[in-house]
Amino acid sequence: MKKILLATTALAFSAGFAAAEVSFSGQAKMGLKYDGALEDDKATAHSEAVLYVAMSGETDTGLAFGATIDMIVENNGDLANDDTTVFISGAFGKLSMGAVPEAEELGGLSDIGWDDLGSDDIAENITGDELDDYMASSLDHNVNYTYAADAFSISISGKIDNANTSDGDDVESYAIGGRYNFGDAYVGLGYAKHSNLDFDGAATDGPFDGDAEVATIAAGGTFGAFGIAALYADGKIDNNDTGADYDVKSYGLRGTYSMDAFTFVAAYSKADMEDFADDQEIYGLAAAYDLGGGASLAGGIARSKAADADRETVADFGITMSF
Amino acid sequence: MKKILLATTALAFSAGFAAAEVSFSGQAKMGLKYDGALEDDKATAHSEAVLYVAMSGETDTGLAFGATIDMIVENNGDLANDDTTVFISGAFGKLSMGAVPEAEELGGLSDIGWDDLGSDDIAENITGDELDDYMASSLDHNVNYTYAADAFSISISGKIDNANTSDGDDVESYAIGGRYNFGDAYVGLGYAKHSNLDFDGAATDGPFDGDAEVATIAAGGTFGAFGIAALYADGKIDNNDTGADYDVKSYGLRGTYSMDAFTFVAAYSKADMEDFADDQEIYGLAAAYDLGGGASLAGGIARSKAADADRETVADFGITMSF
Amino acid sequence: MKKILLATTALAFSAGFAAAEVSFSGQAKMGLKYDGALEDDKATAHSEAVLYVAMSGETDTGLAFGATIDMIVENNGDLANDDTTVFISGAFGKLSMGAVPEAEELGGLSDIGWDDLGSDDIAENITGDELDDYMASSLDHNVNYTYAADAFSISISGKIDNANTSDGDDVESYAIGGRYNFGDAYVGLGYAKHSNLDFDGAATDGPFDGDAEVATIAAGGTFGAFGIAALYADGKIDNNDTGADYDVKSYGLRGTYSMDAFTFVAAYSKADMEDFADDQEIYGLAAAYDLGGGASLAGGIARSKAADADRETVADFGITMSF
Repeated sequence: MKKILLATTALAFSAGFAAAEVSFSGQAKMGLKYDGALEDDKATAHSEAVLYVAMSGETDTGLAFGATIDMIVENNGDLANDDTTVFISGAFGKLSMGAVPEAEELGGLSDIGWDDLGSDDIAENITGDELDDYMASSLDHNVNYTYAADAFSISISGKIDNANTSDGDDVESYAIGGRYNFGDAYVGLGYAKHSNLDFDGAATDGPFDGDAEVATIAAGGTFGAFGIAALYADGKIDNNDTGADYDVKSYGLRGTYSMDAFTFVAAYSKADMEDFADDQEIYGLAAAYDLGGGASLAGGIARSKAADADRETVADFGITMSF
Repeated sequence: MKKILLATTALAFSAGFAAAEVSFSGQAKMGLKYDGALEDDKATAHSEAVLYVAMSGETDTGLAFGATIDMIVENNGDLANDDTTVFISGAFGKLSMGAVPEAEELGGLSDIGWDDLGSDDIAENITGDELDDYMASSLDHNVNYTYAADAFSISISGKIDNANTSDGDDVESYAIGGRYNFGDAYVGLGYAKHSNLDFDGAATDGPFDGDAEVATIAAGGTFGAFGIAALYADGKIDNNDTGADYDVKSYGLRGTYSMDAFTFVAAYSKADMEDFADDQEIYGLAAAYDLGGGASLAGGIARSKAADADRETVADFGITMSF
Repeated sequence: MKKILLATTALAFSAGFAAAEVSFSGQAKMGLKYDGALEDDKATAHSEAVLYVAMSGETDTGLAFGATIDMIVENNGDLANDDTTVFISGAFGKLSMGAVPEAEELGGLSDIGWDDLGSDDIAENITGDELDDYMASSLDHNVNYTYAADAFSISISGKIDNANTSDGDDVESYAIGGRYNFGDAYVGLGYAKHSNLDFDGAATDGPFDGDAEVATIAAGGTFGAFGIAALYADGKIDNNDTGADYDVKSYGLRGTYSMDAFTFVAAYSKADMEDFADDQEIYGLAAAYDLGGGASLAGGIARSKAADADRETVADFGITMSF
């Protein structure tokens, strides 16, 4: 639904001129959120505006290159970088650096609701960089290579120290993933290996040094007015201090039904963290109504059990605008 | 004077295409400021540049929606959010979230001088969110609803906790305001109520918990080459710790005279804070000269008595550019 | 090589419309850096994206005015101001505020390599604002006036306290410089005087209060496929605590050879800091290959001795994109 608006020279309107260019699009939201886990003021206001900057060009031999910067302001707070990525692509595939996807996440689940009820986070609790919620350092990958041929694509990604974070931590993290599309359906497989992890007190056994590996399978598709997406991830975390290991799992199912301007969504996610940490679970319903012109109303309600908290109601409702 | 420059697709040049779009305008300043209250270096340099991002669209049923982000850099310092707002409007009125005006401020005073001599701040010392200068928390409203019918408009606004500041403070703040335009003149009335305030040491009696309410009347107009604007605000602050209450007032008068490319301004403002805090007062003169093409020279000089300081001279002079 | 892309109104396409306007261009990089001085992870990833905002206008009498904001994100980190400048220019010359060049730097050296091997920093170790590497406060100039007549240009610049840094430090810094272009060659002369400096522990004698003055000569040119640039700076630093003074020098030579899409570069720089601080020295080679369309591959390798460190190998390789 993102609409790309070009900021370009008059020359660009003449034929055959493949200039490097800078283009802009945007998104904004305003609405209300409800979180039963908060002490007071369970209902809060939320607004945000994002300017998407896309820069693109083409070399003489036809390689495409570019960069994107997402500039965000939430609740009239700080102006921040949301995600910035640089890439080059050609017949050899696509090489990206910066805010790249982890390669195993070729079939992630979308969230439900208007802004963020968190059903995707629980389903993906052990995939991608999500395990770093339990760590002092980051698992964000910053280099991704993807090769696509017809319906098949394969990605590898990793975390390489940045010039400004070198010597910061010893975490090593790599992932590989493949995805196959058939008709309007897909299946994806992924595998990630993380080493020299520094788990913090969120782990049941307290802080420890560890390693982890995670295998993921995802599948889904669109069948007429119906859509479905499923994710199942199975991981093993090694406690290098005690020699213990933990079998952890996270998974989710998400179904949609479209009727005219309406879309209805139902989702269930669970993170089964065994002895490593508290389990998490969420189920919820959501709906969206397309107002046309790039705007839509959306809302959702869910019952969520995060970490050792009680099961609580979370909900949101608002308008989303695309420019 | 703000000039909106569109960053838009070639399609936008064809007729009848009501696309969501991102547009840009800007402002820049450079000049000198003088503040007699500073110990050394009373004269300082000031430069700033602002990029205004405006995103707008229209739903199928004709509702207008959009967002604005003001990105500012002062004195080659940090890149910061100046103000970000999201809105939707239609026959029902206009609903805004983010950096919204407080509803009582339907007839605020402009400042005098080139950049900021502060005459508006003293006149509005107890209106809008200005009372939070005496507080540990913010009085910024973040939701505003305005309905306009012909010459009359009415607004209500409030401070609703944001998702990222929930449980941060218990301050409650609401305001209502109305404005009536007749010819080139206007009159505005406003009322604000603030509860659970946490006044800090800037108050004469030291920190205390309190409530406040403020009524404001504003009027002004343009009569040929002359313009005038006046504001009077009368408030009551309750000290919930001691039971005391303070009658506080702030008011200001501002007159302008235009002659060819020149505009001359004179202003007087006072904040009479009774036993609550030190009084403030300022009077000054300013002039601006329109250079055409969006640029103007401006300067001002004033005698200002802020808080318990002595009366000091403040002045500024510089160029302002609109793009 | 910077390509300016206009975000402008449809009106701008009609003839003779000299509107104020906001335009955009960009740059991005991705690649690898190697620094032998790091303990672990000597090889690191680096990516960055920059959005250049340029705002420009013209007064009725033909004065040009404008501002530039460079917004940068490195390694998907914070969104930051890289450099922001405001200016006005006409027959009288050009007056700039913000991130202005120091006037003595009319003939600076470029760096070598893909991103930043640092050969320019060592050659310019005592010129411009570089001496502030040894100080607790900044030597950045924020006001520059430049007058150009035919092949000759002269600049004066200084550090004037900003409104938000007044009373921050007592550093005074001024510079003057001239440059003469003849054919494809140039020669530049500069002089800078800095007072009330607060040198920190990087100075051999420990922290002290001091003054400094620096004279610089630079020359260079392009002769067919060859290019050369040289810089020599001679300075004197006074230790006001002990009465000692230090004769310091920094200089560099940089040669280029272009062959079709290739450019080869060799450079040597040295900072001879006498008893003031440790000497620095670097020599290295680099090459760039123009891919067309605004992209180029570049890499460099150098042996660098910075401060009291051992001589180490530094290298980088990557792609640079202009939009």
